[in-house]
Amino acid sequence: MLAIYPGSFDPVTVGHLDIIIRAAKIFDRVIVAVLQNPSKIASFTSEERVMLLRRVTAGMENVEIESFHSLLADFAIEKGAQVIVKGLRAMSDFEYEFQMALANRHLNPDVETVFLTSGAENMFISSSMVKQIAGFGGNIDAFVPMCISEDIKIRLNRGVSSK
Amino acid sequence: MLAIYPGSFDPVTVGHLDIIIRAAKIFDRVIVAVLQNPSKIASFTSEERVMLLRRVTAGMENVEIESFHSLLADFAIEKGAQVIVKGLRAMSDFEYEFQMALANRHLNPDVETVFLTSGAENMFISSSMVKQIAGFGGNIDAFVPMCISEDIKIRLNRGVSSK
Amino acid sequence: MLAIYPGSFDPVTVGHLDIIIRAAKIFDRVIVAVLQNPSKIASFTSEERVMLLRRVTAGMENVEIESFHSLLADFAIEKGAQVIVKGLRAMSDFEYEFQMALANRHLNPDVETVFLTSGAENMFISSSMVKQIAGFGGNIDAFVPMCISEDIKIRLNRGVSSK
Amino acid sequence: MLAIYPGSFDPVTVGHLDIIIRAAKIFDRVIVAVLQNPSKIASFTSEERVMLLRRVTAGMENVEIESFHSLLADFAIEKGAQVIVKGLRAMSDFEYEFQMALANRHLNPDVETVFLTSGAENMFISSSMVKQIAGFGGNIDAFVPMCISEDIKIRLNRGVSSK
Amino acid sequence: MLAIYPGSFDPVTVGHLDIIIRAAKIFDRVIVAVLQNPSKIASFTSEERVMLLRRVTAGMENVEIESFHSLLADFAIEKGAQVIVKGLRAMSDFEYEFQMALANRHLNPDVETVFLTSGAENMFISSSMVKQIAGFGGNIDAFVPMCISEDIKIRLNRGVSSK
Amino acid sequence: MLAIYPGSFDPVTVGHLDIIIRAAKIFDRVIVAVLQNPSKIASFTSEERVMLLRRVTAGMENVEIESFHSLLADFAIEKGAQVIVKGLRAMSDFEYEFQMALANRHLNPDVETVFLTSGAENMFISSSMVKQIAGFGGNIDAFVPMCISEDIKIRLNRGVSSK
Repeated sequence: MLAIYPGSFDPVTVGHLDIIIRAAKIFDRVIVAVLQNPSKIASFTSEERVMLLRRVTAGMENVEIESFHSLLADFAIEKGAQVIVKGLRAMSDFEYEFQMALANRHLNPDVETVFLTSGAENMFISSSMVKQIAGFGGNIDAFVPMCISEDIKIRLNRGVSSK
Repeated sequence: MLAIYPGSFDPVTVGHLDIIIRAAKIFDRVIVAVLQNPSKIASFTSEERVMLLRRVTAGMENVEIESFHSLLADFAIEKGAQVIVKGLRAMSDFEYEFQMALANRHLNPDVETVFLTSGAENMFISSSMVKQIAGFGGNIDAFVPMCISEDIKIRLNRGVSSK
Repeated sequence: MLAIYPGSFDPVTVGHLDIIIRAAKIFDRVIVAVLQNPSKIASFTSEERVMLLRRVTAGMENVEIESFHSLLADFAIEKGAQVIVKGLRAMSDFEYEFQMALANRHLNPDVETVFLTSGAENMFISSSMVKQIAGFGGNIDAFVPMCISEDIKIRLNRGVSSK
Repeated sequence: MLAIYPGSFDPVTVGHLDIIIRAAKIFDRVIVAVLQNPSKIASFTSEERVMLLRRVTAGMENVEIESFHSLLADFAIEKGAQVIVKGLRAMSDFEYEFQMALANRHLNPDVETVFLTSGAENMFISSSMVKQIAGFGGNIDAFVPMCISEDIKIRLNRGVSSK
Repeated sequence: MLAIYPGSFDPVTVGHLDIIIRAAKIFDRVIVAVLQNPSKIASFTSEERVMLLRRVTAGMENVEIESFHSLLADFAIEKGAQVIVKGLRAMSDFEYEFQMALANRHLNPDVETVFLTSGAENMFISSSMVKQIAGFGGNIDAFVPMCISEDIKIRLNRGVSSK
Repeated sequence: MLAIYPGSFDPVTVGHLDIIIRAAKIFDRVIVAVLQNPSKIASFTSEERVMLLRRVTAGMENVEIESFHSLLADFAIEKGAQVIVKGLRAMSDFEYEFQMALANRHLNPDVETVFLTSGAENMFISSSMVKQIAGFGGNIDAFVPMCISEDIKIRLNRGVSSK
């Protein structure tokens, strides 16, 4: 069973990593799919986001990282995936993801969306919160995977100072 | 009883059409009111949005389309409407609309807000989702009224390509 | 347009009365329908609940009180009603009522459910809270219509003392 | 991958069946596990509930029906299951299931809970609503699998008439 | 500033204890108030619940345990408390507690309700879940304060076996 | 006990003022802290927002107004505050604030977040709604403190006309 875990990952957090690890235990193969969304301004380029994800998933044999800039339903067909994985942290996540799942089912009835929940201790972590804290020089070590923490700090401080 | 059904309709979806049909069965006359909001960037001009709505409501005798760029409470007074109709799809809709209903009651106590729900199959359809899917070249036929589907596809692809 | 406003009304609160007044302004005729639910233990008999509602709606010419012990969808057909009115106070109300509205639409597609909201100051008032407060001898004057306040206090204290 | 889909199934609805079909496409083997909860009064005995589920899943080769009266986390270990499947219909489902998933993870860290959503048209269907409608003699054909509809009607009417 | 932390505490969990510790840091004096609710069947008597709370708060100098069987608003006046403390774990908590806070404000405008949140790791813990897990012989050590864990297990297993 | 009440206050509403008054009754000293967020475009400068808050809290002896442009957790340490006060109006507020409270606890475990609720009649009032209504020339007198109502109207109309 091949599963796709799509997202912006701008940047990847320990919450994302938690979902990747869980999905990799359930499914034979997991593609973490980085959305290149032209209408959304990202703090990291899609190349940087792919690179950070590759670093944090190094050694996970059934996990691959790719970027895509098409409709998720089309990308799933192209890859031959039967499952889309989404992480749920909160109510507001749920409602949006629920609507997306129903829309994707309309567009590609052969792909099923499954929801996983990360641990309670990761429930409050989001990429935007990481960026907000790092933007003010706060400590993000507890929120992003250790092996990329320094890179993210450098990148986000640079991002802010160059504005 | 005259009812106003306000919204952005950027563009009109089958979910909106469902609410219009339901409202037209309950109230003697329904004005679908297209908000021209200067602070929000729309994909369709208000003229286009009015034109698309006129096309999908052609033949509905007690439904009219108008655009407005004032406070809803003032527009309701101007038209002599006693009822504002809002469609509810989800929790998050409810909370926002609930606050708007209470605010409008303060501004114009003579107008009552009534909420209708569209069919379950339309619950996940929103204008922004239609635009997102069309922007990636996806099939929006199930989400917008058939008679305007082609126009919307042409318009939204043009919008993307010209960016 | 004939509307039905169904509920337990065990007992009627100022929140219920608020919805009745709003519905009576929108619709030609409103039937307040007291559900006799054999599986739910009520504090007031259905006769008492009808009587209290008649008292608080005395003088409202287009409002009638009835009790019913059938499926709401069937009762609506029997009465020739085109509209079911429900009051929304909170999220949890919304979710339940939303599911009921979809079920009723399945059972009787000719009847539309419309939701009204009571004033913000009534949002926290429920029959069960009234009973809880009165059961401890608290003051319920702000929560039930004045003309029946004494009767409810006597009835609920008796209920508690006789347990 | 062996998955367990636990529930009361009192009785099984088309919403439950929808989740079973989806789970059976994703996982190698699915055990539908009927909870015998001594503290909850069920309308159907656990034997009846198992029998109805067997009937509606006849021909689904990787689906089995069992009943259990232990802790779900223990039952999963006993069966060697790595995954618990839960269906999500609404916010309130989500919150409760989310707390259960976190508790089960504490009790058995080797089992992952995955959430599936049924189709939008099944979102408003619950066992308790089926019982409520059948109790008033309403038509439940759209809410329960066709092959068991008659049995449920007979059983639920008998239940009501014998009260 | 004297604060009251009311609840059923049937039995006290690590989530409750977390809130007590936080409240005791903010307020000069905290009364943990055990509600004796005649209409709710408790697993532990109010004497047992008080005793368990005394045990887990032993050594906390500004914390006292009392039971009450009146309206919370009246109990607050009687004690001279200016603040009611409530713990929030989840949405559904929030909505109910919000309505209670507004009702209590009506009944006693001099008392303010403040909400505290327990740690994320305690978010899924409730007294009813503890009882459900213990009832099936599951391990509740992570969910209740260590010094009373054995007593609760003995008591809840006895409770189940005697049914 | 020193409490910080942080926010954008763009501009201050009667809902904010309600929370300030409640907090000032519970805590010895309250600092209303105006966030200067470089990434969010405000309608009022932080100087204007501070000035408006000073005007509406004139005479409240234990309330001070400051602006800050650092991480809230750091600002709390700098000021020696033990408590962060947040107002809750609605579900969506709650979810976001809950995540912020957990994040702040990670960043500064010595500071506790407490939530207060404003009166029901203020539940629908937000700064963005005030700006939207004022932008269309609507009457905002019921939504902002009287003593600054004129200034806000002048400022927001100028803002719109100059765009």
